[in-house]
Parts: sequence; C-alpha cells; structure tokens
Amino acid sequence: MGREIISRSVIKRLPRYYSYLEELSQEGKVRISSKELADKMKLTASQIRQDLNNFGGFGHQGYGYNISDLRQEIGAILGVDEKLKAILVGVGNIGTALATQINFQKRGFDLIGLFDVDEDIVGKEVNGIKVTHMDDLSSFCEQNKPVTAVLCIPKAAAYDVAKKLIDNGVTSFWNFSHFDLNVNFDGIVVENVHLGDSLLTLSYMTKNR
Amino acid sequence: MGREIISRSVIKRLPRYYSYLEELSQEGKVRISSKELADKMKLTASQIRQDLNNFGGFGHQGYGYNISDLRQEIGAILGVDEKLKAILVGVGNIGTALATQINFQKRGFDLIGLFDVDEDIVGKEVNGIKVTHMDDLSSFCEQNKPVTAVLCIPKAAAYDVAKKLIDNGVTSFWNFSHFDLNVNFDGIVVENVHLGDSLLTLSYMTKNR
Repeated sequence: MGREIISRSVIKRLPRYYSYLEELSQEGKVRISSKELADKMKLTASQIRQDLNNFGGFGHQGYGYNISDLRQEIGAILGVDEKLKAILVGVGNIGTALATQINFQKRGFDLIGLFDVDEDIVGKEVNGIKVTHMDDLSSFCEQNKPVTAVLCIPKAAAYDVAKKLIDNGVTSFWNFSHFDLNVNFDGIVVENVHLGDSLLTLSYMTKNR
Repeated sequence: MGREIISRSVIKRLPRYYSYLEELSQEGKVRISSKELADKMKLTASQIRQDLNNFGGFGHQGYGYNISDLRQEIGAILGVDEKLKAILVGVGNIGTALATQINFQKRGFDLIGLFDVDEDIVGKEVNGIKVTHMDDLSSFCEQNKPVTAVLCIPKAAAYDVAKKLIDNGVTSFWNFSHFDLNVNFDGIVVENVHLGDSLLTLSYMTKNR
C-alpha cells in the first residue's frame, strides 16, 4: 500500500474524497468513474486516478471505482475507525456550536469532556456532556487521558490553557483561537481554523476577482 | 505597486501577516525586523522579505519594517477599508456563533441581515440584528443589495438557498455548509470552511505523526 509515501497534497484532498464518497454511498451508489468523480470535485480525471492509485487497486479500466471499498480505505487512512479521546475547552458560542453540530465520532474522535472557567456555564449540559471547571482538568486528564483538545478560547488565554493541556498529556489540537500554538510549543499536532483570516481571504477574493 | 502580480501563495499568507501586525500595533510596537517577524510566524527571514517586497519599500536594511505602515498597506490590499454588505443565512448554532463572535467590520464587511426559515428563530435579535424570514429575502436584497452571504445551512438546503441568493445578486460566499458551491454555480467567489474535513485532517495528522 505504501501509505507512508502519500504526498501532502494528496492528504489534503482525502477528507474531500471521503466526504463525497460517503454521500454517494448513502445515496446507494455502488460505482463511480474517475471522470464523474472529477467533474463533481472540479479536478481532472487523471488527477483523481493518480491520487487514488495511492490506495491500491480500487479502480478498474472502464469500470470505475467501488465506492464503498474506496471510502473504507480512505477512511482507514484518515483514521476514522480509531477513536481518540478529545476534550473541548471554552464552551462559548463557537464551542457550543462545535460540540452540538460536529459529529466527532464519524471523524475519528470521541468527545468526552467540555471545560470552561465561567461559573454560569460550568455544570450545564451540552449535547449530553456536562461542562466541567478548568480547575478539575488535571484530575480529569489523569483519569481519562484525552489526546486531543478543541481550543475555543480567547487568544489572551490560549498560551496558559495550551500549556496546562500539554502538561496534562494533550498532544493534538483543533485550534479555533487566534493563537499560533506551533510557534510556542514543540512536538504537538495542530489543525488551525482561523475564522477571521478566512473572512479576510474572502474580502480579498471578492474585491479582486 | 504591481498588486496584480502578487502570487496566490503570498495572498494566502497576507491575513496572517495582517493579524499579527495588528497585534503588534496594539501592543504599541513601531518597528519589527524581518528576522523577528520570521521567528514569530515560523517562516524564514528571506521568505518574509520576499513576500513584503511586493508591497513597496516598507523595509529598510538594518532598520526593519514600520509596523503601522505595513499593516495599513496589507489591509488595503485585503480590502478591509472598503466594507461590502453581507448577510448570514441559517441562524443555528454556527450562524449565531459567527454573527456574535466575528468582527465583520474589521475584515471588510458590514453584516446587515440575518435570515432563517425557523419560526422560533425569526424575529429574534442576534448581536443587534433582527432575524428575517427567508420569504423576505428578495425584497431585502432589492433594497439593500448585499454582495456576500455567509451560508450556515444544512447541505440539503444549500443548492436552493444559494440559487435564490445568486438570483438576488449575491456573488460571494463564506460557505460553512458541506456543499461545493463552485461546482454548481459559475462566476461566484467562495471561501469554504469545511469543519468536518478539518477535523478529518486532524485525525490523520494525529494518528500519522
């Protein structure tokens, strides 16, 4: 399979392939040609074939891809079947939206804890999970050993909270705070969602089309 | 200035430069060297110099960049001073979080309307803006001429809503629905925030570090 040699640009397209194949699968479709897949994803058929050749022999000339097999293989590469324990820190608007709206299970995570410092929020239940005070983070981590943290806290608090999480064994971050974690900590994995920067990009694209 | 020849990869770094320079500016800093800026942003000093050379002579050998001037110039390129009218459709958890949490003004937009179809939500005020029913979208657009829409609706509704918006003159989208707008409509500008795909990427990175 040679999984270790999959290039970064292919990796970045995998979630899109996966989501799309999942959708086709739910619609009951069994096969799809590289041309059809290419049209739907605004890529070229040859790019699709090249990308998917990384994952073994799911394509057959003139026959297309088996959607379910391909989806399963890409899912395995993305790690959706191996659930990592995740916690979310900062149960404000964004944090609540993520805890409520995002299906963590389907994306390889098990959301097991919510944390905040606001006494008005601590003790509330969000999507069936009770919000715990940050003071109890260490004992929670000792007991449950979460690997990943979703950070939905203001930038000003991000350094201290991230440090506390790392000291308690967290090594992977889904970062919604406008704080560059990788610059400040080594040896961690970070996926940034900088919404403000995304809106600035839209501003540029709209005004310079 | 040669703004039209700024490469795509530079453009993608501009929001980060801008946010960071803004922060430095707020801290009262006046100048920064390319080395210092590089360290903070995990880029090389020569990459920084190359990027910023696109924007005229703000750097001086041994003297660094004037933070305020550089921030202003990058802001002008990103279009932060020219406010485009924006509306948000889908005032659920994510929509409410964005309307409340994101400073649109600072990023070149004026959020002037919120829309939903849910009778429990219509009429409510979110961050000082009353939620309007989608039935009134056309008359609102005719009167106010919004250019940009923030889409926070389920995938199933995305095609119809996007079509209605485009028919009413909207040409630019900040897209939080898992629906590929560009594939279905031509001549529009789209900035996607696919949170599910982002979480899948984190899953891959965490399990294959």
